Amino acid sequence: MSLIENLNWRHAVKAYDPTKKVSQENIDKIVEAIRLAPTSSGLQPFKVIVVSDQSVKEKLVEGALNPECMRDASHIIVLAAWDKYTAERIDKVYDYTTDERGLPRGRFDAYTSKLKDIYLNQPNEVNFAHTARQTYIALGLALAQAAELKVDTTPAEGFDNSVVDRVLELEKYGLKSVSLIYVGHADKANDWMGNMKKVRVPKDEFVIEI
Amino acid sequence: MSLIENLNWRHAVKAYDPTKKVSQENIDKIVEAIRLAPTSSGLQPFKVIVVSDQSVKEKLVEGALNPECMRDASHIIVLAAWDKYTAERIDKVYDYTTDERGLPRGRFDAYTSKLKDIYLNQPNEVNFAHTARQTYIALGLALAQAAELKVDTTPAEGFDNSVVDRVLELEKYGLKSVSLIYVGHADKANDWMGNMKKVRVPKDEFVIEI
Repeated sequence: MSLIENLNWRHAVKAYDPTKKVSQENIDKIVEAIRLAPTSSGLQPFKVIVVSDQSVKEKLVEGALNPECMRDASHIIVLAAWDKYTAERIDKVYDYTTDERGLPRGRFDAYTSKLKDIYLNQPNEVNFAHTARQTYIALGLALAQAAELKVDTTPAEGFDNSVVDRVLELEKYGLKSVSLIYVGHADKANDWMGNMKKVRVPKDEFVIEI
Repeated sequence: MSLIENLNWRHAVKAYDPTKKVSQENIDKIVEAIRLAPTSSGLQPFKVIVVSDQSVKEKLVEGALNPECMRDASHIIVLAAWDKYTAERIDKVYDYTTDERGLPRGRFDAYTSKLKDIYLNQPNEVNFAHTARQTYIALGLALAQAAELKVDTTPAEGFDNSVVDRVLELEKYGLKSVSLIYVGHADKANDWMGNMKKVRVPKDEFVIEI
């Protein structure tokens, strides 16, 4: 199926069947789509936490707006962004990139110096706003990848970040949670969204052509 | 090709062939992927501006970090987010949604009242930070859709927003520019990124499995 067909297929599932687990192979493909997501200057300023341990999920439920959904989903994928930019983090990415491309380290120094000039002179919260935005590129691609596999998902922004950050000990990684993706198979009898028509703003209101 | 193959195929193109235009059919598919992008509470708090008029592109170039690229691309797609949430904007989306689903208007009042309680009590800049994030979901899907069509793209955050907002008169729509997507066909001889190996953070550093 095409991307457009897959996007029409998916919806934000409202109830999961706790007996149906998603295969590791499919989880790996969703994570790979996240890893391949383009990001600003290629910095990939976030990490992915994949939670399948039921006892950890139970702890996360405390911060959820839709606890049954989180509890019953097969996996919870957490997108957690860098809490700030640092010279070390930027250099690590570019050192690895040049190594992989067989280029001398420092090949992109002019560019990374410019990045550091901008980012290291901004407050951490401005930089976190930027790293957090990047995770949304990956969020969209993860939902599309799951749809390609006919795996159900629910993207969630509405949750208590402090609970997720604490349970997953994100501070020690220099990360802060941004969004969650519940991954699993819908409980079709209770997924009230499943039978609703997908509605989007009509094209003529949504697009301005110049 | 699968989404993962398409994501591996694409890269941020650094030079476009100005003689090669992208068909309206393909532009329409990219816009449709944007329109189908999921967003927080389904509000789709942004619009898409598709610029193909060369004289308008020339005016936008003034704010570009990579002017040749912008000038030579076939189309520039601008993702511009709502400058704020308002009760009217929220109601308009939900009225349309209930109408389309054959439900009585007001069916989701309990939910939209909660949204209004949150959003209308926050400063505009906090709400814009939220609407801007949503555009990144669409950005990722637009790039994936273009890749499926073997259309080249360059996502761009680094540009002078004030130029783009002024040239496109975004204030009158209650919008602010967030990102640009250059769309076209690469000038392969000058696209220095084209022959570089795609590098991403290795999976074992990027993913934490629990």
